[in-house]
Amino acid sequence: MLPFSRVAIIGLGLIGSSLARAVRLHMPTVHLVGYDGSDAVRARVDDLGLVDDVADTPGAAVIDADLVVLCVPVGQMGAAIEEMRDDLPEGAIVSDVGSVKASVAALAGLLPEGVHFIPAHPVAGTEKSGPDAGFAELFHQRWCILTPLPGTDETAIERLAEFWRRLDSKVETMDPQHHDLVLAVTSHLPHLIAYSIVGTASDLEGVTRSEVIKYSAGGFRDFTRIAASDPQMWRDVFLANKDAVLEVLQRFTEDLTALQRAIRWGDGDTLFNLFTRTRDIRRTIIDAGQDTAAPDFGRDHR
Amino acid sequence: MLPFSRVAIIGLGLIGSSLARAVRLHMPTVHLVGYDGSDAVRARVDDLGLVDDVADTPGAAVIDADLVVLCVPVGQMGAAIEEMRDDLPEGAIVSDVGSVKASVAALAGLLPEGVHFIPAHPVAGTEKSGPDAGFAELFHQRWCILTPLPGTDETAIERLAEFWRRLDSKVETMDPQHHDLVLAVTSHLPHLIAYSIVGTASDLEGVTRSEVIKYSAGGFRDFTRIAASDPQMWRDVFLANKDAVLEVLQRFTEDLTALQRAIRWGDGDTLFNLFTRTRDIRRTIIDAGQDTAAPDFGRDHR
Ligand SMILES: NC(=O)c1ccc[n+]([C@@H]2O[C@H](COP(=O)([O-])OP(=O)(O)OC[C@H]3O[C@@H](n4cnc5c(N)ncnc54)[C@H](OP(=O)(O)O)[C@@H]3O)[C@@H](O)[C@H]2O)c1
Ligand SMILES: NC(=O)c1ccc[n+]([C@@H]2O[C@H](COP(=O)([O-])OP(=O)(O)OC[C@H]3O[C@@H](n4cnc5c(N)ncnc54)[C@H](OP(=O)(O)O)[C@@H]3O)[C@@H](O)[C@H]2O)c1
Repeated sequence: MLPFSRVAIIGLGLIGSSLARAVRLHMPTVHLVGYDGSDAVRARVDDLGLVDDVADTPGAAVIDADLVVLCVPVGQMGAAIEEMRDDLPEGAIVSDVGSVKASVAALAGLLPEGVHFIPAHPVAGTEKSGPDAGFAELFHQRWCILTPLPGTDETAIERLAEFWRRLDSKVETMDPQHHDLVLAVTSHLPHLIAYSIVGTASDLEGVTRSEVIKYSAGGFRDFTRIAASDPQMWRDVFLANKDAVLEVLQRFTEDLTALQRAIRWGDGDTLFNLFTRTRDIRRTIIDAGQDTAAPDFGRDHR
Repeated sequence: MLPFSRVAIIGLGLIGSSLARAVRLHMPTVHLVGYDGSDAVRARVDDLGLVDDVADTPGAAVIDADLVVLCVPVGQMGAAIEEMRDDLPEGAIVSDVGSVKASVAALAGLLPEGVHFIPAHPVAGTEKSGPDAGFAELFHQRWCILTPLPGTDETAIERLAEFWRRLDSKVETMDPQHHDLVLAVTSHLPHLIAYSIVGTASDLEGVTRSEVIKYSAGGFRDFTRIAASDPQMWRDVFLANKDAVLEVLQRFTEDLTALQRAIRWGDGDTLFNLFTRTRDIRRTIIDAGQDTAAPDFGRDHR
């Protein structure tokens, strides 16, 4: 039996529209309703036929739902809950896909009694935004992390876990604070550093913008992909996960200073040893099915 | 007319073997001789049939060549020149592919009179090493930077430029110091930062190695590709380009500190503005044909 029969998706950008497509692919009998704050996005989702109904209001979207998934930027989660809370049916499960979890879990008090609130985060994405960027396979073999609050109904948690497993995701559960520390390392710090280096490179004296572009295949271009991610989404992530991001950033800065010192003193062994260790990690990620084994990410070389 | 008829490649790893394959593809009548310091590599190149002759010594490789290309790690360029200098024919052009140019240009004095020495750097690569990793298309539409010393014969420079253009590369000329500053930004700093963050993530208290692997699709895995690059090659790069790397690293650290401050004070506008600027750079790189427009580098999502 399917874990849900009527799913509402609030926010129909990259993640929301991917979720709609994934539900269609893996659970075609589920009735899907979508809502987005943007008129243009609603119209586009309608044209693409991604859901059964595009609702005109958040309330209309959720009124019959047994699962509501909030797919809006982290800073918009509170507003999104407030807009639909009065229309949520008793017994519904409300979840989300936000990249930060403690700040979302803290919104539990906004939800009415009798509704199960289970924050979640599918660790999958691309640098694109909007409903045209989504695709059904985005969550395949990626992890979805559930961060239920203590005392949450176990059956509700299991139904949500089953929902994600049906989309071919793997499911893990942890507390929101731990999620935020782990993701600060595996996602937020990498984004911060990519944004930062791309900023640095683009206004250096002595090296023109055009030189940076021409010779970007030396490594720099990799960072520009991540640094092309949605500005609003990422601003919200850094504001919402400030403490954990600052903590791992501090560690990174210390490690980078040690490398700087090794370069300054010509300490080739320290460099060589680190560079050998890091190589193993890539191999483990590929073995775990979390990245392609193809050289250069399989970029096509014509 | 082809710019060269007898080409010797010293060092048959990723770049040397790609060069051999590219010459075969684009200039099939060129006679190719290869040499590598490693017996295993020489045997493998012979099995793969990548060159007409695998020489047993550097001297035997270059004795008839009109172009010799050194494809060994930057720290080995001096030794490689010394091993073959006495066998270089009058009028030959000696070039290289090293990622740092001032330290290579400084070796000019090792070469005999009557030989043209023109350091060069094709800005193209992958994270793999060795002769099996090479492919003929590696240099297609990538830039090759020539850094001739003042007074170098113009005809020799033009012949080398034509050689790279025949391999479907674009050619630019600049002085070695400027090359090293530009590449410090577009290649060496990105590698240093990738190595550093992968090191940081792999020994943090509070987050296990297995968590880092599982949730690496949040962005971290991108950095592991670059951080899987050859340890010896990259150690040599940082030792040889110390000054420029330390200079751009200093700028990066300042910019990162500014971002850290913006996060600490909840200054969302500073974050949003930077994140919007960096997005444009990716677009320019794609428009310039220096990266794929496919989301997520075109990684396959099954
Ligand atoms: N992108 C990733 O790689 C990724 C990965 C995992 C999780 N996430 C999380 O997924 C969520 C959505 O990200 P995304 O990449 O899908 O962003 P997106 O493509 O920008 O889509 C977000 C959509 O939500 C709409 N929206 C904003 N506020 C709203 C509100 N109060 N009510 C209804 N709709 C609203 C936006 O409309 P407007 O255009 O009018 O603002 C937009 O269409 C974020 O919480 C993010 O942290 C993202
Ligand atoms: N990889 C890139 O992305 C990239 C891009 C542009 C330029 N480059 C430059 O290209 C050069 C080669 O890099 P690569 O990636 O091709 O490295 P690689 O795959 O490790 O190949 C280097 C080869 O050179 C051999 N070698 C070392 N010292 C030698 C010597 N004195 N005489 C003859 N052979 C020797 C090595 O043999 P052993 O195995 O016995 O050491 C190895 O087979 C470096 O200067 C690098 O800076 C690399």
